[in-house]
Amino acid sequence: MKSLNIGLIGTGYMGKCHALAWNAVASVFGDVPRPYLAVLAEASQELAARKAQELGFARATGDWRSLVTDPDIDVVSITTPNAFHPDMAIAALEAGKHVWCEKPMATKLADAERMLAAARASGKVAALGYNYIQNPIIRMIRKLLDEGRIGEVNHVRFEMDEDFMADPEELFYWKSEASYGHGALDDFGVHPLSILWTLLGGVRRVCGHMAKPYADRPLRDGGRRAVETYDIAAILLELENGASGVMALNRSAWGRKGRIFIQIFGSRGTIVFDQERMNEVQLYTLDDARDRQGFRTILAAPQHPPYDKFIPAPGHGLGFNDLKVIECRELMRRIAGERAMLIEFEDGIRIERTVDAIAKSAHEGRWVEVSN
Amino acid sequence: MKSLNIGLIGTGYMGKCHALAWNAVASVFGDVPRPYLAVLAEASQELAARKAQELGFARATGDWRSLVTDPDIDVVSITTPNAFHPDMAIAALEAGKHVWCEKPMATKLADAERMLAAARASGKVAALGYNYIQNPIIRMIRKLLDEGRIGEVNHVRFEMDEDFMADPEELFYWKSEASYGHGALDDFGVHPLSILWTLLGGVRRVCGHMAKPYADRPLRDGGRRAVETYDIAAILLELENGASGVMALNRSAWGRKGRIFIQIFGSRGTIVFDQERMNEVQLYTLDDARDRQGFRTILAAPQHPPYDKFIPAPGHGLGFNDLKVIECRELMRRIAGERAMLIEFEDGIRIERTVDAIAKSAHEGRWVEVSN
Amino acid sequence: MKSLNIGLIGTGYMGKCHALAWNAVASVFGDVPRPYLAVLAEASQELAARKAQELGFARATGDWRSLVTDPDIDVVSITTPNAFHPDMAIAALEAGKHVWCEKPMATKLADAERMLAAARASGKVAALGYNYIQNPIIRMIRKLLDEGRIGEVNHVRFEMDEDFMADPEELFYWKSEASYGHGALDDFGVHPLSILWTLLGGVRRVCGHMAKPYADRPLRDGGRRAVETYDIAAILLELENGASGVMALNRSAWGRKGRIFIQIFGSRGTIVFDQERMNEVQLYTLDDARDRQGFRTILAAPQHPPYDKFIPAPGHGLGFNDLKVIECRELMRRIAGERAMLIEFEDGIRIERTVDAIAKSAHEGRWVEVSN
Amino acid sequence: MKSLNIGLIGTGYMGKCHALAWNAVASVFGDVPRPYLAVLAEASQELAARKAQELGFARATGDWRSLVTDPDIDVVSITTPNAFHPDMAIAALEAGKHVWCEKPMATKLADAERMLAAARASGKVAALGYNYIQNPIIRMIRKLLDEGRIGEVNHVRFEMDEDFMADPEELFYWKSEASYGHGALDDFGVHPLSILWTLLGGVRRVCGHMAKPYADRPLRDGGRRAVETYDIAAILLELENGASGVMALNRSAWGRKGRIFIQIFGSRGTIVFDQERMNEVQLYTLDDARDRQGFRTILAAPQHPPYDKFIPAPGHGLGFNDLKVIECRELMRRIAGERAMLIEFEDGIRIERTVDAIAKSAHEGRWVEVSN
Repeated sequence: MKSLNIGLIGTGYMGKCHALAWNAVASVFGDVPRPYLAVLAEASQELAARKAQELGFARATGDWRSLVTDPDIDVVSITTPNAFHPDMAIAALEAGKHVWCEKPMATKLADAERMLAAARASGKVAALGYNYIQNPIIRMIRKLLDEGRIGEVNHVRFEMDEDFMADPEELFYWKSEASYGHGALDDFGVHPLSILWTLLGGVRRVCGHMAKPYADRPLRDGGRRAVETYDIAAILLELENGASGVMALNRSAWGRKGRIFIQIFGSRGTIVFDQERMNEVQLYTLDDARDRQGFRTILAAPQHPPYDKFIPAPGHGLGFNDLKVIECRELMRRIAGERAMLIEFEDGIRIERTVDAIAKSAHEGRWVEVSN
Repeated sequence: MKSLNIGLIGTGYMGKCHALAWNAVASVFGDVPRPYLAVLAEASQELAARKAQELGFARATGDWRSLVTDPDIDVVSITTPNAFHPDMAIAALEAGKHVWCEKPMATKLADAERMLAAARASGKVAALGYNYIQNPIIRMIRKLLDEGRIGEVNHVRFEMDEDFMADPEELFYWKSEASYGHGALDDFGVHPLSILWTLLGGVRRVCGHMAKPYADRPLRDGGRRAVETYDIAAILLELENGASGVMALNRSAWGRKGRIFIQIFGSRGTIVFDQERMNEVQLYTLDDARDRQGFRTILAAPQHPPYDKFIPAPGHGLGFNDLKVIECRELMRRIAGERAMLIEFEDGIRIERTVDAIAKSAHEGRWVEVSN
Repeated sequence: MKSLNIGLIGTGYMGKCHALAWNAVASVFGDVPRPYLAVLAEASQELAARKAQELGFARATGDWRSLVTDPDIDVVSITTPNAFHPDMAIAALEAGKHVWCEKPMATKLADAERMLAAARASGKVAALGYNYIQNPIIRMIRKLLDEGRIGEVNHVRFEMDEDFMADPEELFYWKSEASYGHGALDDFGVHPLSILWTLLGGVRRVCGHMAKPYADRPLRDGGRRAVETYDIAAILLELENGASGVMALNRSAWGRKGRIFIQIFGSRGTIVFDQERMNEVQLYTLDDARDRQGFRTILAAPQHPPYDKFIPAPGHGLGFNDLKVIECRELMRRIAGERAMLIEFEDGIRIERTVDAIAKSAHEGRWVEVSN
Repeated sequence: MKSLNIGLIGTGYMGKCHALAWNAVASVFGDVPRPYLAVLAEASQELAARKAQELGFARATGDWRSLVTDPDIDVVSITTPNAFHPDMAIAALEAGKHVWCEKPMATKLADAERMLAAARASGKVAALGYNYIQNPIIRMIRKLLDEGRIGEVNHVRFEMDEDFMADPEELFYWKSEASYGHGALDDFGVHPLSILWTLLGGVRRVCGHMAKPYADRPLRDGGRRAVETYDIAAILLELENGASGVMALNRSAWGRKGRIFIQIFGSRGTIVFDQERMNEVQLYTLDDARDRQGFRTILAAPQHPPYDKFIPAPGHGLGFNDLKVIECRELMRRIAGERAMLIEFEDGIRIERTVDAIAKSAHEGRWVEVSN
């Protein structure tokens, strides 16, 4: 595998997460060449220079366009606000770079479709940052499902809740503007959709409902402005595999910090997962006598690869940032032509189309088929 | 308060539960006269006689009609399969008896409406067996909501899951016949609806979806028969108070035994409850500094009346049957003209109409208004 | 089985619990004759009369001695403060009554030994109220141990914690007086000891430590009085079966309400139980592949007799008072000469001797053998 | 702060953990100079070269003595089996290097005392690897205690359990040899002791008990060999602050993977922590009305520094390896003369002396004072 030169755009929440992953991946896995952290782009040259110093990048630029066309760069990490994804990803792909773009692809489906077209035209790897699916525990769930351990899945429930918008007196900012997106649906609903996709495949039909817990929010200079986005969404689902489902999203859910609660019901058992306890999965099966059946809590362990690359002892716990390191390795394998577990634009577009169908359904108050 | 003579119809699951409640209520509460367990009716005189002996009833009959017209009887407990409720309840009311009928009212809305009419005409107390709402912890939740402890409620999620229909190889029986009802929706969806009603009031609009996890089930004599009812239901809700909601029901949910999982989100906090841990409630509020906020688990205690009537020490735990004793006392108070917390036919019809709207919505694939 | 006439002494916490049990046992089990609640004794005739009315006893007396010699009485329930147990139990036994005495036997070992002698001399059943061992979940644990499901037990940890003495500003009362007993050790340490005895047998050697969280407590009329008893105890154990163990007790443990936390480690698995979630047990075994082992939570169900006598559906939950009903049935079976699961004076004395050895050990700061 | 050149001895479990920490610390914190990973030592030149490549070290050696005297090296990470710690640490200190040595200091107290003397003589920083105390949640607990949030601490319980020695048929290896140490006590009992020290200070008196769950273990070539170490230990404690306590350790505890369970009882509340859910702490206080008190679960969040350096969102979870990164930063600050939270040899010796007193106590069956 050849070493890769990395360009990073953005150093916020996920930007730092990408930087840490690129920095750690070789030491953790020991089987990929150490990436070279070449260029970091930020909104200004000054900020870029400071962040490059902190995060260990060799060069810095205030102009992301120069980064995506830099001949030294092999891969571009795009971690800017969602509205910037299309231009950056398309430019990078057109410049012949591999792209690792944070979710979701774009704020409008049409833009996402253009990104997919650019990826196809480029022949380069275009992967999305859906780190939750990289959790060894999620892989374990996939394995259990593939083995038929809970039989045939017939019903699922996915919830994602956080409370960063829960305070009604928090000032109005762009997350409440319609131009930004629908609200919880695209802001983080794509996360449970990515897990659903990974574990159980596509969605056929949806019936969505979106709600605003607060009609307006205060403005910095006094007065209040009407909220335009929906912090809450709930969706009835029919999956392509025939199972029924429910999804519920709430970014105003006091007390929920990073909850992604998943219940998968099958003909021979049930699986339950909560991202707030990301090193655990609960499994109920029929493999024992009736009087001793129960949900068992399996702790992440070296038996759940690649947990073993991080820690040789069971039950010691991976962290959120470790998931990005795993994703980074998958990306490197994919670029090297190896089999990898990633959501690329080809699959990511399915998630975007599902989001679009849900939004349409919610606005029109009826069931909508997800296009393919 | 005058003593009451009790007639009990049915001695199955809830019949025994009623018998235990009538037997215990005076000793537990110490403030109501000891009911006289007068007559027990079962399908045959023989069975009735045996059960009367076991459950402490003075007389037995194989003819429920004689029971409901028996001049010695003040109150009739109706605990038979749902299809029998209308005839029995109406006959008892017409005979001038108070009625305590297990949920749901009937398998068809029209029958429930007739029952309501009979109750109104009789001037007698006509109460429904919705014991989950009698849990001191549910009352505590109600108190927290009334106090505004979690602010204004804007979103709710209610789930009810059991696994008594989860085995696809269990023989076909009446619960899979359409004539019995819709499936999970009316079989036990009325339970979460009763709690929703108690805590937050009525439902305005619904959009339901129902699913069959198993297309058919084996017959005793070989072959298989198509399942006609829906073991799974999921519903989008708009409440009369303006909150949005989701309800999900599954009687084929392996591993869930008596789960009623409730999440209530407000502008200042969140409440979470699980019937499988019925002596606990989780509360998240903003009353402390950010770095020490968290969901607290409150254990049922004498501070949550009428827990104190059962046990003087906190955290020792009530059981499922104790809820019926509380309901029994409420019924006795209501009959005596005192204020009581009960779901009577007047309110119960609201639950039935909601069920009806959900079923209609599911069959027609669209949102439906709940009639009032 | 012949019907029994019951005399009850005391109507406090456990007195009411006994009354409810005697009242419910026939209806719940259906296989024992309905006991006749004959006489109730309390500190005064007036109080006794009021309580008899509430609890359904036919007669009342302010003189417990008349009760224990009443020719109509078959069984005497003794639920008074511990200091009264010896006189009452011995008098009842000498009068030829069966005795059901709340734990512990006495506040001094010598008294307990006298009680045992009286029981032996009487030939009557002399049982102790150790209701926690009647939990169907505890029976399930016993079954798992007997089956060798967790292999050979080599280590145990038992904790019991409540917080009724946790407030340092609560007024001084008799629980802080040395004449009452040692403190947490005999006040409720006998509960975990009773479970230990039931599950794993006797204790060989102990090394105890007792501590006072608060040196003094306020007096009603001002000033403070030195606390003489120990709200905290911790004990190293060697069991007769060769296992090592730890026991820890704290009646000043803020937040713990009825916690009895048990961990049993064996060569092939582990069992964990918490009385505050008395309808659950956790089991870890090696019966599955390494990557899917975990503690499973088994919910109480009809498969765990006699849960089925209370509720036909799993996971619905028994309550604290139900345990007494089970114990009552065991007592009735024992009186009828059937096999029963009870701690009688013969075995209860083992618990008292263990308590005595622990107290001696704590006072002398050394290991002490438990006498047999 | 000047940049540091790092030498690492050992690349096993904790060796890799150190390497990852040195590699990540600058990017995570952004306020320390990027360390230079200079030399890695392993048992052979060949292994060292391979590991240096994987872990990003510039040079490799099969001779640890050459590393500790290498003039380019500023800090030596010692992560070899415990028996090697004294020679390596003393040699490094004598060569004027700062030392970061994994716990425990040594297998014999005399060796640990020599290490302390060498550290004092050197004037260099000599820190121990006690990463659990670096958890932001542990710091939060410390803060709560310092604030008096649970009042005066009067009782503590510490448990540490894993199951890596739980299989009685696992082959005999050095962990069962007496020359290696006492068993669970020094193998991992030092971890809870380090947390106890950090949160509550020193131990005054101990009474220990150690046990062997399995008398012998199979040898590779047939036959069995007697086990010489104690996989189980239990200890009664008196702390210097006057509180009583219990500690229990078991490395044969089936199902426990990385459990460190801590209960701290105070006059106004209780704190509970479990390392297997290292991103949570439970807090019970009296700050609300009685009917709504309960243990709250606080999730790790940016409000618990330095969590914020890893992730800006709450409840997303740090991992085990992140704790080492935090410790690494503390070490760098300490070397730079800043205030740091670390257990250095000066304090670590207190833990070693406590271990020694416990072992002595267990062997002699009596209480022993911890020397200072």
